[in-house]
Amino acid sequence: MSSFPLTVHATDRPGVLKMLGLIAAVDIGATKITASLCSREGFIIRLYQRTRLEGGEETIPLQVRELIDACFERARRYPEELKAVGISSAGPFRRIDGYLHIVSPNICGGMAPERGALPNDWKKVPLEEVLKKHFDNVIIENDAVSAVMAERNLGPGRGHDNILYVTWSTGIGTGALVDGRLIRGKNGNAPHGGHVVLVDDGPLCGCGDRGHLEALSSGTAIARDYGDGASTADVFGYYRRGDERAVEIINEAARHFARGLASINNLLDTEIVIIGGSVFSNNTEILLPLVWEEFRRSFPVLSHGVEISPTGLGDHIGDLAALSLVIPDEWIDDWKEKRPWEGAPDTIVVD
Amino acid sequence: MSSFPLTVHATDRPGVLKMLGLIAAVDIGATKITASLCSREGFIIRLYQRTRLEGGEETIPLQVRELIDACFERARRYPEELKAVGISSAGPFRRIDGYLHIVSPNICGGMAPERGALPNDWKKVPLEEVLKKHFDNVIIENDAVSAVMAERNLGPGRGHDNILYVTWSTGIGTGALVDGRLIRGKNGNAPHGGHVVLVDDGPLCGCGDRGHLEALSSGTAIARDYGDGASTADVFGYYRRGDERAVEIINEAARHFARGLASINNLLDTEIVIIGGSVFSNNTEILLPLVWEEFRRSFPVLSHGVEISPTGLGDHIGDLAALSLVIPDEWIDDWKEKRPWEGAPDTIVVD
Repeated sequence: MSSFPLTVHATDRPGVLKMLGLIAAVDIGATKITASLCSREGFIIRLYQRTRLEGGEETIPLQVRELIDACFERARRYPEELKAVGISSAGPFRRIDGYLHIVSPNICGGMAPERGALPNDWKKVPLEEVLKKHFDNVIIENDAVSAVMAERNLGPGRGHDNILYVTWSTGIGTGALVDGRLIRGKNGNAPHGGHVVLVDDGPLCGCGDRGHLEALSSGTAIARDYGDGASTADVFGYYRRGDERAVEIINEAARHFARGLASINNLLDTEIVIIGGSVFSNNTEILLPLVWEEFRRSFPVLSHGVEISPTGLGDHIGDLAALSLVIPDEWIDDWKEKRPWEGAPDTIVVD
Repeated sequence: MSSFPLTVHATDRPGVLKMLGLIAAVDIGATKITASLCSREGFIIRLYQRTRLEGGEETIPLQVRELIDACFERARRYPEELKAVGISSAGPFRRIDGYLHIVSPNICGGMAPERGALPNDWKKVPLEEVLKKHFDNVIIENDAVSAVMAERNLGPGRGHDNILYVTWSTGIGTGALVDGRLIRGKNGNAPHGGHVVLVDDGPLCGCGDRGHLEALSSGTAIARDYGDGASTADVFGYYRRGDERAVEIINEAARHFARGLASINNLLDTEIVIIGGSVFSNNTEILLPLVWEEFRRSFPVLSHGVEISPTGLGDHIGDLAALSLVIPDEWIDDWKEKRPWEGAPDTIVVD
């Protein structure tokens, strides 16, 4: 943080204030929340805290407020400088009385398949309602939906109006820009691409249905199919040593992933597919050729000309996703050129 | 036609001209083209002609021009009254130099899987470019995409911003309104819902890939699976008489159809699914309960609250689809209330 100059707060100079305004970028997951404060020059501070899953249904939005307040305090900035809050959150959501609520079975104990799996019995988390009471300008999207904005603003999606972003990680999430606009759907859950159907029966998906992309190709699925207590990273290690079972499992996971991309592309008529997430990013040299080989076999008129590209934003995608929901147009060129996330200050873990 | 009053052409009264303006609605298929002329009061005339598949690549757009001209001549209306042309066409499309071209293998011999299947070797039909030279205000969408506008303007989609329209006929086509806007994609091919992947291998689809909804559930697939030269209508007849093989084939087709709806809904987060097309419309009492039973088993958070409804527009969907692309807002209430398509003049077949 010390490497970032503190700019003077200038309430008496509105034009300058506009230039000096700050953005809070918050990434909410089932295990951790990160909150960053950004200026036009880059990240000022980034706090990390375990997600609080005990207490009332408002616990998480109140934690987000606290974390944003803590960012300002620790960075010695004025809360009045805050222009907007971008929030990238684990989904799915449900819109209740006009406000987005998190209804994820990984966060809400009352939505989990097994009672007692989480230390709460929440049916929903009233994220938007609580935060809108406190902040004037809040935009909330699910993590993969906001990632597509980051890829378009700052990554290989530049200049494209039809982008599919896929995070291939322990789960599989997607975000899509169609005709230059994010698609959201009635509850803000579009596109839940991890849940396209690919086989008729197949392994049980976390959502309760069968045959979904996520149940066939996610990091969790790869480890499950190998068994023997191997982690996903282990299975890729075995693949590299030529272990036949690992080769077969990863080939199948990649084939299903490509079939999933083809199915989604047949629906969305995409220009570019951008893939991030730990499973893909750590094993791009193995997975990208496998995915490409299968994808190009699909419906030729619709797969023609589709690009497939790894994310250009690496580990910073979560923060940049939240930021990109509210980044002012006049910051984008600076950020693209200087890539300030690459020299971002160290994350501060808070209790 | 004689039941429709001829209104006076009034170029000297611009306000009245606006009220009296006419719309041409054109529905282009591989076998026939219909062109209708509509006023605020209803259909004035409807011409039907076999699709011309011989000649240069401009043959079809030139035929559309001729048909629209013929509508005016036969209805004794002035071409100057034309406000807009809505065109609902068989796809898929490709955008070349900014203009939509038809690249359907059922229309373009050069795109068909077998050479010689069609009496032309077209690679594309320059529909938009030719028509935009001739008409000031032309909107072109694929047939299912424009149908969703008809359902929203005049059918059960009223008041909804997230609508999936599915035509279940010899093929399966879809159109979708997401967040209140039609989704089109880079070449205007979104959403090609007949080509979502549902099984891993499965029968060959017309597009060249395998395991697609259309190859599993379309009318063509139902007849193919029964064999013995039975038509789709025959198989439904056998179903009604309790023929075991027909029951099994139709149950499976409906199950796959519902799995396809679930997969699309997981991507688009839909409010209402509206189903039309001859297979569904002729057998709604059989298919709707089967589809509903399977659909409700899917990913509960996303299928929760989704309505499934038959089209309210019946056989008129093609004309109303084309019309709905350009219908003035001020006509919609009249059309909704009076449903003038139900008393439309007889179609005139032209050579």
